Amino acid sequence: MNPGESLRLLRERKPLVHQITNYVVMNETANATLALGALPMMTHAREEVEEMTRIPGALVINIGTLSPHLVDAMLAAGTAANARGVPVVLDPVGAGATAYRTEPARRILDTIEVGVLRGNAGEVATLAGVAAEVRGVESIDTAADPADLARDAARRLGVVAAVTDVVDYVSDGERTVAVANGHPLMGTITGTGCMSSAITGCFLAVADSPLDAAAEALVAFGVAGEDAAVGARGPGSFHVNLYDALAALDPETLDTRAKLA
Amino acid sequence: MNPGESLRLLRERKPLVHQITNYVVMNETANATLALGALPMMTHAREEVEEMTRIPGALVINIGTLSPHLVDAMLAAGTAANARGVPVVLDPVGAGATAYRTEPARRILDTIEVGVLRGNAGEVATLAGVAAEVRGVESIDTAADPADLARDAARRLGVVAAVTDVVDYVSDGERTVAVANGHPLMGTITGTGCMSSAITGCFLAVADSPLDAAAEALVAFGVAGEDAAVGARGPGSFHVNLYDALAALDPETLDTRAKLA
Amino acid sequence: MNPGESLRLLRERKPLVHQITNYVVMNETANATLALGALPMMTHAREEVEEMTRIPGALVINIGTLSPHLVDAMLAAGTAANARGVPVVLDPVGAGATAYRTEPARRILDTIEVGVLRGNAGEVATLAGVAAEVRGVESIDTAADPADLARDAARRLGVVAAVTDVVDYVSDGERTVAVANGHPLMGTITGTGCMSSAITGCFLAVADSPLDAAAEALVAFGVAGEDAAVGARGPGSFHVNLYDALAALDPETLDTRAKLA
Repeated sequence: MNPGESLRLLRERKPLVHQITNYVVMNETANATLALGALPMMTHAREEVEEMTRIPGALVINIGTLSPHLVDAMLAAGTAANARGVPVVLDPVGAGATAYRTEPARRILDTIEVGVLRGNAGEVATLAGVAAEVRGVESIDTAADPADLARDAARRLGVVAAVTDVVDYVSDGERTVAVANGHPLMGTITGTGCMSSAITGCFLAVADSPLDAAAEALVAFGVAGEDAAVGARGPGSFHVNLYDALAALDPETLDTRAKLA
Repeated sequence: MNPGESLRLLRERKPLVHQITNYVVMNETANATLALGALPMMTHAREEVEEMTRIPGALVINIGTLSPHLVDAMLAAGTAANARGVPVVLDPVGAGATAYRTEPARRILDTIEVGVLRGNAGEVATLAGVAAEVRGVESIDTAADPADLARDAARRLGVVAAVTDVVDYVSDGERTVAVANGHPLMGTITGTGCMSSAITGCFLAVADSPLDAAAEALVAFGVAGEDAAVGARGPGSFHVNLYDALAALDPETLDTRAKLA
Repeated sequence: MNPGESLRLLRERKPLVHQITNYVVMNETANATLALGALPMMTHAREEVEEMTRIPGALVINIGTLSPHLVDAMLAAGTAANARGVPVVLDPVGAGATAYRTEPARRILDTIEVGVLRGNAGEVATLAGVAAEVRGVESIDTAADPADLARDAARRLGVVAAVTDVVDYVSDGERTVAVANGHPLMGTITGTGCMSSAITGCFLAVADSPLDAAAEALVAFGVAGEDAAVGARGPGSFHVNLYDALAALDPETLDTRAKLA
């Protein structure tokens, strides 16, 4: 686990991160990707997702605002990514809230080799077949211990599962890592979950393994959140500080600031 | 009229506010909702709007960037909301500018029981059948006195009408209330009208009546605008301050700061 | 070339600038338009683009997130604009990256009289038939000298070509102007290219010629970028400052601050 070294590599290589994401956070995840040091590619037309002349370093699929057209584009882009060895992140926003979200998320997991599944406990529990209550797309409740949930979901779904909350748990089914970086203000703006998935994609393009990528991304984003909280007067100024903090992340000190267990 | 008490209740209950809104302001209205203390649910797929497992506290329909698919989703969500007793806000962005906007707005008003119609004078006048000139979706001109317009629209359309401008007028057809809170900088960024509709939805989930909800929401948003203007150097910093100010609104002092008449 | 006088006129006349643009930057280009002093009209429904009751001062077409529906709306709006004498800006985001982008951009150029084509070197070179390598939608590489490219593209395509980079080159095929205003932080946020196209539309509504409009817009936006960099701590605060700086642009000093050659 070397978040600092991965961040250094990421800024050196500037990978393209293809994002098929929701309309609410498109600008935010693109800017978070740029601030971190990678290049966002925000294209979701079914007609072109396979054709982009440059091969991205990772593909991020986020189902926050679905339409039939978008689901087709996600499946096509995921299939093309798999064929080219491009790693895939799935953010199953609101899975469990409606069949219209749960089914495409399941279909993506069945059809595409997903490297990292990044969601909250309710979303991941739904997809792993663990009982959960989902409240809209914003909050959740599941009886499962989140570390157990991450490990079980990883085993059942054949992915690295990243279950994010105050403490995040990342598991490949064998190893489970806890990440305790972050700040409560991250819950006061929309899109921080989506940003963390985008940043997972950035790290996936350069890290040693999907487990490393997912944990390192949550360390980096959490540390940026801690920095952004300094001097924030509320959610608006915190949001602005977050991009400044992502751009100012220091690869030299990131390892020592990581709260990994 | 108790804006402070409603705000206190809102933060205690954290109602889900379902928003089917335009692509230009989705992120902004979600963040305004969160900053105030409620939970946004930003979903607009026809296929799922009726199925969300949790019943929201209010539904906000905003026609800013229409498509046939969105109109279907709005009608389905509105019908489901009516059946469940969920109050509805309609923001008829640009009604009067094209038949493509005026007709769906009329159809929504005809089909769905709308609690609060929140728009500028031109939009409300168009829907109430009062002569008006609409300039794009940003500015308007109508000969009608805005207080009379609010009252007439409320009577003719069977809604609470909130006609917003430098002074806002809210009427249920019997009582008409003027709200003089706000700041000129609110007109320098896009989406403040849409945010005020979202915030009306938040208050509608907890207030005593649609009239109270609409007036209290405009008081709260106007006071936040006044606070956000302090130290703003232009529209960018005002926009950031606005979220900070919404989050910092104090239920204890809101009643005394209200400029209600 | 009188950027100060055009800005003064623009703020006096407040032209409507109709923008059919991508989902990633809609809010940002609308706010940049408002901050500068014009009025954005953000509508992209095929059904209404010809019907807007008010005639805009300019039309900006941006192909950043295409769909068949959007291409139809762009062609219909462009045809209506030509018939009414409304000048058109085309921002061919990602042209060259996929046929799905290159072909509609070519079709728009073939079907509609475009006043200003504003893009990076790779996009403009693709459309002008000059060899280029495009990397995603963010970076490019072409062997052509950008001043030559702007002149050649203008001649071949019958437009004013604005090729933007650290130094921008604007040409009508006869005269070629270099604009050296701007700041490296403009490359650290998404949407600055799209904003510069929106601002080109604003100036096109008031300037003496498309060449003047394109060059004056890039002067104004570049000077705002220079001002926004003062005190910025990273891409987040720079982004906020950019709107403040656009609103604070001073017509009296803009001509002397212009780095035109």
